[in-house]
Amino acid sequence: MREPIPEPLLSERLLLGPGPSNVAPEVRAALARPTIGHLDPDFLELLDQVQAMIAEVFGTNDSLTLPISATGSAGMEACLINLIEPGDRVLVGINGVFGTRMATIVERCGGEVIRCEAPMGEPLDTDRFIGLLERERPQVAAVVHAETSTGVAQPVAALGHAARRANALLVLDCVTSLSGMPVALDEWQVDAAYSGTQKCLGCPPGLSPIAFGPRAIERLQRRKVPVQSWYLDLSLILGYFGEARVYHHTAPINMIYALHEALRRALNEGLEARFARHHLAHEHLVKRLEALGFEFWVAPEFRLPMLNTVVPPVSDEAKLRRRLLIEHGIEIGAGLGELAGRVWRIGLMGENARIEVVDRFVDTLEPLLKA
Amino acid sequence: MREPIPEPLLSERLLLGPGPSNVAPEVRAALARPTIGHLDPDFLELLDQVQAMIAEVFGTNDSLTLPISATGSAGMEACLINLIEPGDRVLVGINGVFGTRMATIVERCGGEVIRCEAPMGEPLDTDRFIGLLERERPQVAAVVHAETSTGVAQPVAALGHAARRANALLVLDCVTSLSGMPVALDEWQVDAAYSGTQKCLGCPPGLSPIAFGPRAIERLQRRKVPVQSWYLDLSLILGYFGEARVYHHTAPINMIYALHEALRRALNEGLEARFARHHLAHEHLVKRLEALGFEFWVAPEFRLPMLNTVVPPVSDEAKLRRRLLIEHGIEIGAGLGELAGRVWRIGLMGENARIEVVDRFVDTLEPLLKA
Repeated sequence: MREPIPEPLLSERLLLGPGPSNVAPEVRAALARPTIGHLDPDFLELLDQVQAMIAEVFGTNDSLTLPISATGSAGMEACLINLIEPGDRVLVGINGVFGTRMATIVERCGGEVIRCEAPMGEPLDTDRFIGLLERERPQVAAVVHAETSTGVAQPVAALGHAARRANALLVLDCVTSLSGMPVALDEWQVDAAYSGTQKCLGCPPGLSPIAFGPRAIERLQRRKVPVQSWYLDLSLILGYFGEARVYHHTAPINMIYALHEALRRALNEGLEARFARHHLAHEHLVKRLEALGFEFWVAPEFRLPMLNTVVPPVSDEAKLRRRLLIEHGIEIGAGLGELAGRVWRIGLMGENARIEVVDRFVDTLEPLLKA
Repeated sequence: MREPIPEPLLSERLLLGPGPSNVAPEVRAALARPTIGHLDPDFLELLDQVQAMIAEVFGTNDSLTLPISATGSAGMEACLINLIEPGDRVLVGINGVFGTRMATIVERCGGEVIRCEAPMGEPLDTDRFIGLLERERPQVAAVVHAETSTGVAQPVAALGHAARRANALLVLDCVTSLSGMPVALDEWQVDAAYSGTQKCLGCPPGLSPIAFGPRAIERLQRRKVPVQSWYLDLSLILGYFGEARVYHHTAPINMIYALHEALRRALNEGLEARFARHHLAHEHLVKRLEALGFEFWVAPEFRLPMLNTVVPPVSDEAKLRRRLLIEHGIEIGAGLGELAGRVWRIGLMGENARIEVVDRFVDTLEPLLKA
C-alpha cells in the first residue's frame, strides 16, 4: 500500500499583483457547480448569455464575441493568427512586454512587423502611429490598451479612426482594462480585441474573452491559407458558437460558469460604477503611497487605475515583497522585462479595487518600510 | 437602471457521454479554493505535485510532464507542433475522428502525412503500421490509444518498440484512456503523449496533461524553425515549469487545483483498482444492453471499457437520446463523423464507472425502448 497523498495546504492571499486578482465567493461557487455537457441545452443557453455579456463589457453590438478556451495570451494569439497571413504587414505598438509579445506572434505566423516604439512607461505617440499607418499601409495594426508591464493606458479612439481610414484592421489588447475602465470597441472602431478573466473581471485565469467585428470576420472568411493552429482557428470555433453547434473541442464548462457569474456581477454593479470604483481606489493608493515616498513610474494622465507601477523607496525590493507575501499574505507584482528589480506593480483589480483594500495594504506596508 | 441579470438554472445530469464525466464533490470543492498567484510558493509546490502525479498516471519516470493550459485538443496540437518541422514525414494512424484530427494538425504545421487507415470500429493493423514505419522511415508516428469516436482500444506496445527501432518518435493520444485503463509510456517506448481532464480523471474540461520523453525533448531542443504557436511552444512553457519559473502565461490556477484533487483521488484509489472498476462496469453494461437487443460496434477484444459504442435497436435514436436527457437527466453521446445517427457512445468514465450507475441508466432506458 502506498502512503495516501494528503490534501494541499494553501495560504489565503490578498492578490495585489498584476493578476490573478481575488475571486468573489459567488464566482467560486459558480465554478463549483455540477459539470454538464458542452452540447446540453442548459449549457448552450448559459453560453449565449456569456457571449452577450462579453459584447456588453467590450462595448460592441457589431462583433462576434466568445471565450477562447485558454488564457489571455492565447486570446492574443487567436486574434493575431486568424487575421494575419504570411507576408502581411502588421504595425505593432511596442511600449512594454505585451506589445513585444504581439510582435513575436506576428513574426511566428509569417507577418512582417512594422514597429512603433515608445519607452516603457509612456504611451505610443499618436501622431507617429498614425503617420506609420498612412505611410506603410499595413493590413493589420495592433496596440495594447492597458500595458500590464508598465501601467500605461493607451488612448485608442484616434488610432482606431486612423486605422479605419487607412484600411487596416485594428487589434486591441484589453487583458487588463476590460471592466476596470471604459472599453468601447464600436465607438473606437476596433476590429478585434481580447482579454483575460483574472484581472478586473475577478474570475480565475483560464479563459480569454474575444471580440471579432464584421471587418475581421470578413478577413477571416477570405483567408487564402488556413490558420496554422487547429485549436485557435476561429473559422472552426465559430461552428460551435453558431447555430449548428458543431463539436470542435470540449468547452471548459466550469470555467465558463465562473465567467458567467463574473460578468453578471460586473454588469449588475454597472460598468460606470465599476470604473468609478477602480478610479477611486487608484487615487487613494496614489495619495497614500506618495506620502510614504513612493514615486509613480507613469505620468498622471496615462496611469492605469488597476495597475500601478511604483518605485519603492527601499534598497532591497525583493526582500520586502517576500515579507509582504510570506508574513502578511499580500502579493504584489515585481517589475517585468527591463523594469525587473526597479519597480513594483500594484494591482487594484475587480474585487480589490476598494479603498479599504488599499488601506489594508498600505497600513501593512508602512511599518515594514521602516524595518 | 437595467434589469439585474438572474442566476442561471442548470439541471443536474448523469453524464454518460464521451466526456465530460461527472465530477466528484471533492474535486468541485478543490476548484472553488481561493485563487492564489501563479508564482506563489504554495502554488508552485502544488504544481510540482501535479507534475509528479501526471507522470505516475502516464506510467513514466523519464518524461517531463505538465498540464497544458487548454483542453485535450490543445494537448494534441502541442505534442505534434513541437515535434514536427516543415517537411517532416509523419505516419498517422487513422481509424476515427481523432486520428483524422491529428493528420489535419500535421498538415497545418507543414508535415507530410503518411496514412495508415483502418475502418471506424477496428484498430490499426499492427503489421501494416510497422511495415510503414520500416519502409517510409517517418520522423514521427502518431496513434490514438483510445478512439473516442469509435470505442476502439489500440494495442500500443508493439508499435512503440517498432517506432524506436525505426528511429521515429511515437506520439500517443491518451485523452480517453488515462486513469481508466493501463497506460505505460516508458514500457511501451512512447515519446510524447497527451490527455484531457474531463474523461476518466473526473475533472472538469480545461486542461491537457502531457508527457514529453527524453527523445522528444531532444528533438524539441534541436528544432531549426521555432514552433509557430507562441502559446503552445514547449521550449517557452518549460521555462515556467523548470527551476527558473520564468513567467510565460498565467497558469489556470483553479483548474490546476481541481486536477490536483482528481489525480490525488485516482492515485489514492490505486490505478489497478481504478482500471478494474472501469472494466467491471463495462462488463455489466455489455450484459445488460445485449439483453435488450443492443449490438456493440467493436469486437470484444478491442473494446474500450470507458467508451461503449452500441447500435440502439430503435428507429429514431436522436429522439430517444433527447428523452433520456430532458426527461431523465441522463446524457449519452451521439455518433461522430460517419457514425452520426447510427450509434450511441456510452461513457463509463471516472466517477461513473460503477455497477450502480450502469443499472440506473439501463433501468431508465428499458421502459423507453418499448414506448
